[in-house]
Amino acid sequence: MRVSELSQRSGVSVASIKYYLREGLLASGTQTASNQAIYGERHVSRLRLIRSLIDIGGLSISKVRATLAAVDDGSTALHDAFGAVMHGLDDLPSEAESADVATAYAEVQNWLSARGWHIEPDAPAPHRLAELVATLRRFDFPVSLTDFDGTANFVQRTVDVEVQYARAMPDRTAAVETMLIGTVVYERAFVEVRRLALEAASFRADRAPRSSELDVHVPRRN
Amino acid sequence: MRVSELSQRSGVSVASIKYYLREGLLASGTQTASNQAIYGERHVSRLRLIRSLIDIGGLSISKVRATLAAVDDGSTALHDAFGAVMHGLDDLPSEAESADVATAYAEVQNWLSARGWHIEPDAPAPHRLAELVATLRRFDFPVSLTDFDGTANFVQRTVDVEVQYARAMPDRTAAVETMLIGTVVYERAFVEVRRLALEAASFRADRAPRSSELDVHVPRRN
Repeated sequence: MRVSELSQRSGVSVASIKYYLREGLLASGTQTASNQAIYGERHVSRLRLIRSLIDIGGLSISKVRATLAAVDDGSTALHDAFGAVMHGLDDLPSEAESADVATAYAEVQNWLSARGWHIEPDAPAPHRLAELVATLRRFDFPVSLTDFDGTANFVQRTVDVEVQYARAMPDRTAAVETMLIGTVVYERAFVEVRRLALEAASFRADRAPRSSELDVHVPRRN
Repeated sequence: MRVSELSQRSGVSVASIKYYLREGLLASGTQTASNQAIYGERHVSRLRLIRSLIDIGGLSISKVRATLAAVDDGSTALHDAFGAVMHGLDDLPSEAESADVATAYAEVQNWLSARGWHIEPDAPAPHRLAELVATLRRFDFPVSLTDFDGTANFVQRTVDVEVQYARAMPDRTAAVETMLIGTVVYERAFVEVRRLALEAASFRADRAPRSSELDVHVPRRN
């Protein structure tokens, strides 16, 4: 198909497609004699992946480039490719961690050991979680890592199925792409469901009579 | 305190503080005769809130400005303020939704009704969730709204406690700020815990013998 049809099929504008081609996110099409390029189904699916990483995952163009390079690097074992892709969604801390984050990071590592979760040393997620715990404490939220046990137990029930679903894909690229898109979209879906639950809970709390209002109808100090 | 101490206490550079002052995210300090401004504890906590919204919530400067305006608008009832702040974290769709998103949006509305969750018409989250469902379907993930029942049941157990915790704050601004920071940080913490669980699951799957490898050791067709 020509670039106009590729744009229509993928929902990505021709200008954006040309930008992604220049930035090396999208492989060139097959050049024809008329100096036009012809694109295939692979370009359609790759464009959808790029848009999802940008629009849903919030990734920068350089992060998308690095992530897609990890997807396409056929030299790594499947688990290492999963790791490279997932680690590429975020950054390691660029500067020395402050004392409260370092304390929280040690707690995160103990918590991961206690759960028996094997995490590579170059994973950004333990650092990010430590920063979040330190942030909550700066705002005087009483928080310890065991507060996340419920969340960890809940997600643990579903992630094995997700990994098996991805590993069952017909080829390595499809497996890594499936893992990547599943990660980015399902984690965002969780965030949206959580926001909906919070709004519904706030509505319930707003309608519920407050204890001070109830008191009005209750005889006091008889 | 002077701006240098404010910078040290909040961990935000003087240049960033001046930028936030110019952009109207941070109230001016009290001007002294020497043409210097003096800042208080309120500025420290507001700077931490701004940094959390940008660094953790991924909000743009204009989104932070709108969100803080909703926090500070004392004229709205508490539930409406919670709504305004949470809705402000995201955008309503800027263009007409495509057919597959519109289909998913109707499913989201039915699902919310079935759960008895009261959500305001101007909430972005139902639109976002519909887009995510449509995205998963474009990638051939078999997905229906009931797939999110487990997530909804899980979060429902914790959100009432969060809302009560925020409503118990000594004043309205503290209540809305607590709701805001809790939303942004806890939803991000969930994402990180989920990524850790996925990496651990991928490691387990990688180490587990595959069924095809097991077959080698199992006598077939006896």
